[in-house]
Amino acid sequence: MHGKRDVIVHGTDPYNAETERDALAAGPLTATSAFYVRNHGDVPEPADWRLRVDGQLERPLDLSLATLREALPEHTVTATLQCAGNRRAGLIAIRDIPGEAPWGPGATGTATWTGVRLADVLALARPLPGARHVGFEGADLSPEAKPPQPFGGSIPLEKATRPEVLLAWAMNGEPLEPVHGAPLRVVVPGYIGARSVKWLNRIELRSTPWKGYFQDVVYRLLPEDDTPAPGRGLPLGLVALNADILSATPTEVRGYAFAGGERFVTRVDVSVDGGTTWTQAELLDDLGPWAWRHWRLPLDLPPGEHELIVRAWDSSAATQPEDEAGLWNPKGYVNNARPRLTLDVPRPT
Amino acid sequence: MHGKRDVIVHGTDPYNAETERDALAAGPLTATSAFYVRNHGDVPEPADWRLRVDGQLERPLDLSLATLREALPEHTVTATLQCAGNRRAGLIAIRDIPGEAPWGPGATGTATWTGVRLADVLALARPLPGARHVGFEGADLSPEAKPPQPFGGSIPLEKATRPEVLLAWAMNGEPLEPVHGAPLRVVVPGYIGARSVKWLNRIELRSTPWKGYFQDVVYRLLPEDDTPAPGRGLPLGLVALNADILSATPTEVRGYAFAGGERFVTRVDVSVDGGTTWTQAELLDDLGPWAWRHWRLPLDLPPGEHELIVRAWDSSAATQPEDEAGLWNPKGYVNNARPRLTLDVPRPT
Repeated sequence: MHGKRDVIVHGTDPYNAETERDALAAGPLTATSAFYVRNHGDVPEPADWRLRVDGQLERPLDLSLATLREALPEHTVTATLQCAGNRRAGLIAIRDIPGEAPWGPGATGTATWTGVRLADVLALARPLPGARHVGFEGADLSPEAKPPQPFGGSIPLEKATRPEVLLAWAMNGEPLEPVHGAPLRVVVPGYIGARSVKWLNRIELRSTPWKGYFQDVVYRLLPEDDTPAPGRGLPLGLVALNADILSATPTEVRGYAFAGGERFVTRVDVSVDGGTTWTQAELLDDLGPWAWRHWRLPLDLPPGEHELIVRAWDSSAATQPEDEAGLWNPKGYVNNARPRLTLDVPRPT
Repeated sequence: MHGKRDVIVHGTDPYNAETERDALAAGPLTATSAFYVRNHGDVPEPADWRLRVDGQLERPLDLSLATLREALPEHTVTATLQCAGNRRAGLIAIRDIPGEAPWGPGATGTATWTGVRLADVLALARPLPGARHVGFEGADLSPEAKPPQPFGGSIPLEKATRPEVLLAWAMNGEPLEPVHGAPLRVVVPGYIGARSVKWLNRIELRSTPWKGYFQDVVYRLLPEDDTPAPGRGLPLGLVALNADILSATPTEVRGYAFAGGERFVTRVDVSVDGGTTWTQAELLDDLGPWAWRHWRLPLDLPPGEHELIVRAWDSSAATQPEDEAGLWNPKGYVNNARPRLTLDVPRPT
């Protein structure tokens, strides 16, 4: 059912697949059928789904989806989700990362998400003064976790109360599909995809960040010589400035750039001579602060070999690191090096 | 009166000076007497100072300092200010930037700032729905501006209503000095120093960003081959992740790192072998989200020449660009390349 088109399958148990470059390049919104999937267990299909809201709050909630939809106003946000492992293949090319899939540039995609604001749910539940983090837990069960557990994670309460954070039941205007988290998932724009927990059935108000396996051990940035263990390294959260090339011909290069939303992409430069000179690309459709920007640059490349390099800039005037060498880490996260591509233009025959 | 100690003077008409490395290294708070000064005109000493608040709002205000202090609650924020030209010397070393001073790492510093929240002033003035930006204008007159005008700039209304943005009359617990903006300056933590307008005597609620010379022409990031002109390039705003080395001996290296506040410094690595291996430095005093982090690493360097490199990481797992080469721009702003230093340890005699 999944993985039939426009995706590269990295695993079937659990199902994991990334979007092909052509499908990413097709437009600023990614088709649901081609949207990347990063799962850590089988897709659950709960028969009697409820959403519990508990922890450090005045008024615990236990809601059906119908109640949620009736009680609170509906909102739609266009947001890019991006896995922390996006572009890991570039790190594996330097040094292997056993047990981790070689994701290319397609562990990211942009969709419209429709649901209720998490802020509105929290206002009903009335967090206590000690609540500082909002935890999310899915209905799945991950056998790879130690011990086996549902997928989960948390975000700071300050982010959770922002208007862009949704509990979504629809994606690209259609009911959310099981593989993408039906009946309800969190969507946390600007944060690594791991915080947009699928099959959400519990929200916990907490004084401390989530202690589950996936936030406390897995999705962390470790120094080069460290080994994953509870609390080692630093938790990932905000998305870092990134970009990749999606298509390149002698007459045009296209790609995406994404800065997360708290910061936005201001400029994308392309070099066709290995970094000696740079030309600004055209930024395409602006779908709002939480979505990537596609970009393009017309080229007129003569026959021969050309080294293309791309560098994006964000609204703090920060740009991407030159190459992957200094970015290698034991889990292979956040490869945001400048993308490079060698294009060999043949002589006309 | 100024420039007598702990500063390197870049100009006297107008007065401009940066903090010496030793004074930066002395502690996480920078002494007022050593704090950097970036002025664009003579220091005004208005005899009859008032603060006007006008533009797109319901209730224009015209306030004395006494009224401001009596009417609104006092707040103190510890914040690092950083000039967009900090570390420009590293860019000039690649290619000259005529007319711009070769600022080293001391166009930044950290102080406590005391005053009222801009948000509280805006609440009194009641912005109209069309207001999107908050402009600031000083009482100085800059002859270098075209045409000559007071220094000014704006920030988005969304930032202006955040609790960290102050109208400050005190710095490090003492009344603000004239050279630092007395009687009142804006302090915009996390933004380039140019937005923390001194000698503030006008706040304007606007639908568009400030059109004055210093925001529309000067403090902008231009592509390498462009020339400053109104609206060219991109306005600077948020501070980019940066770091520098403040002292290095065979037994210890120390420095600062700053990520702006919306993001924070999570890690600082030091290499003593030109980037082959890296060791994590210790992060020192945490003065809150809007202040830099000082860091240190004990060393035990044998005699010989050692190439030290430092790289800071922020909470989005972004790190600094490897070197200055790709960062050169016509005004020499935002040099946030990894700092490097060659340390020659002599043989014992």
